[in-house]
Amino acid sequence: MSIDQAAGGTAPPTSSTVVALSGGVGGAKLVLGLAGVVDPSTLTVIANTGDDFDHLGLRVCPDIDTLVYTLSGLSNPDQGWGRAGETDHVMEVARTLGEETWFFLGDKDLAMHITRSRRLAVGESLTSITLDICERLGVDSRILPMSNDFVSTLVETADGVLPFQHYFVRDRCEPLVKGFRFDGAETAIANPQVLNALSDNRLRAVVVAPSNPFISIDPILAVSEIRSTLDGTPAPVVAVSPIVGGDSIKGPTAKMMRELKIDVSPVEVARRYADFLDGFVLDVVDAQLAPQIEAFGIPVQTANTVMDSLEDRVMLARVVLEFSDALSRRAGDNSVTE
Amino acid sequence: MSIDQAAGGTAPPTSSTVVALSGGVGGAKLVLGLAGVVDPSTLTVIANTGDDFDHLGLRVCPDIDTLVYTLSGLSNPDQGWGRAGETDHVMEVARTLGEETWFFLGDKDLAMHITRSRRLAVGESLTSITLDICERLGVDSRILPMSNDFVSTLVETADGVLPFQHYFVRDRCEPLVKGFRFDGAETAIANPQVLNALSDNRLRAVVVAPSNPFISIDPILAVSEIRSTLDGTPAPVVAVSPIVGGDSIKGPTAKMMRELKIDVSPVEVARRYADFLDGFVLDVVDAQLAPQIEAFGIPVQTANTVMDSLEDRVMLARVVLEFSDALSRRAGDNSVTE
Repeated sequence: MSIDQAAGGTAPPTSSTVVALSGGVGGAKLVLGLAGVVDPSTLTVIANTGDDFDHLGLRVCPDIDTLVYTLSGLSNPDQGWGRAGETDHVMEVARTLGEETWFFLGDKDLAMHITRSRRLAVGESLTSITLDICERLGVDSRILPMSNDFVSTLVETADGVLPFQHYFVRDRCEPLVKGFRFDGAETAIANPQVLNALSDNRLRAVVVAPSNPFISIDPILAVSEIRSTLDGTPAPVVAVSPIVGGDSIKGPTAKMMRELKIDVSPVEVARRYADFLDGFVLDVVDAQLAPQIEAFGIPVQTANTVMDSLEDRVMLARVVLEFSDALSRRAGDNSVTE
Repeated sequence: MSIDQAAGGTAPPTSSTVVALSGGVGGAKLVLGLAGVVDPSTLTVIANTGDDFDHLGLRVCPDIDTLVYTLSGLSNPDQGWGRAGETDHVMEVARTLGEETWFFLGDKDLAMHITRSRRLAVGESLTSITLDICERLGVDSRILPMSNDFVSTLVETADGVLPFQHYFVRDRCEPLVKGFRFDGAETAIANPQVLNALSDNRLRAVVVAPSNPFISIDPILAVSEIRSTLDGTPAPVVAVSPIVGGDSIKGPTAKMMRELKIDVSPVEVARRYADFLDGFVLDVVDAQLAPQIEAFGIPVQTANTVMDSLEDRVMLARVVLEFSDALSRRAGDNSVTE
């Protein structure tokens, strides 16, 4: 958000919207909280699709699906990804037939990949397919792939360059990380609905979920039009730290930071996002780090960011939105006093 | 078989082979019987692929799969097609996601279509895929698609031209049949392994299974090189009647004959095959029709052709092969006395 925009002087929008940038499991928790705080139909989620890959010849979009299952209430609460009550009949036979089965796909989940692959093959866009699936599964929020073009996260490791899911699932994040590439991101056309959502005058907040900065948020930002539109978005951009107490709540963020010789600290996350960030939400256990982040010119809010229960998710979402609202007012005040 | 070939004068082959032409359920019964009578590794089955179609975006080959499941012992004995102990988890979700579900695919069966579709998409031939699947599922016989090219049976009906599975499964064979077309058959390249099998000097018999002449055997014959190779095959070609007592044992053969104004009689089946047939196996209940078939110059053998039990299948297979052997000897004798 720029000061100019915040001080735009137009009447306050009658119904506000919220946009979240999210990867999979960790991000989906906060997204579910947001959907519990605002009218879910006013919430748009920009999903990372850099993790997408073809498995058993089917297009799998892990982050989209985690968001869909989480928001539809179909998710497996124990693992955070996949569906509850899954069976493995297809996968068991696929193994017998010589298919690679290191990436598990449950029977119900497979129907998603089958229908998506069929529709992609006949030329329908990933956005159109995803929105239709959301509607059919009762998800009132919009889950939007960052692009309809295929972008593929590659992990540069000590063992060579690995496609993301090979690194993440097959090799269990064991290879030492040296860097990341987002194949196709440079030429990928940003999802027009994403750009519209980020430019919407009714926008109340853009929330960067506590997802992995390297493999969940960076691929979204690597689509250049999304990054530039984020700069001009009319609402505050607020990120929630994925690092709490010197470790990542979920997934390999901390391990990656160590291997990349980056301090495992929310400060470093805030530093990465500093160019476009209007506010940063820090866990209460890291409150002492606030001054270091504020030194970047980024206001800080502390909160309990560890989301164990649904109440935790809703509570954090409320704090994030109220913090964003405060940033809006402050920006407005600043412009008035300037 | 031509007389010349039968009298070829070369030493009898040390190990003989058998070829069967087959559609799905009905044909697979006799094929299973043949695999119980001869060394299964010497049996080659030429499968109709005119029924193949894409469902849920996956390539489904019903006749190949029925043969694979029957010979591997995985088939559902009650319905004759599909696998035993199936579940419907994928299909149930696919319905929720708006997919067409009038053609049921069980979860285990789906793994077959998924792996086949994946491998076809990367350029592997249907033959190579099918043979690999046979090996993995413990099928010792060779199941060969008639062609690696896509051939599509179309049913000309009073309601218009229908893709075969729409006619057969979706519309339950209700539309009045006027004729058939085999799209792609004219340009389809015959499977080279099929031509080799039909030309093999060790060949003992070519068995036309009691499959539907119009939609299971005719598509195979519509591949012109298969038809011409059948003319020159070194072994007797023996067909088993799919019509018993004025009706078809299985499927819509009799209904189609009525609608095409053809007598529902084994005589009419023999007439269709007359050009390439060396012998015809008639059910005992139709023994009185033998003279009409013999009038075409086709020797007739009667047998119990209704295969309820595995013993029935093996018994019929034995009769068919012994009949074929007798035709071989007779052809040899004829040439000697000429």
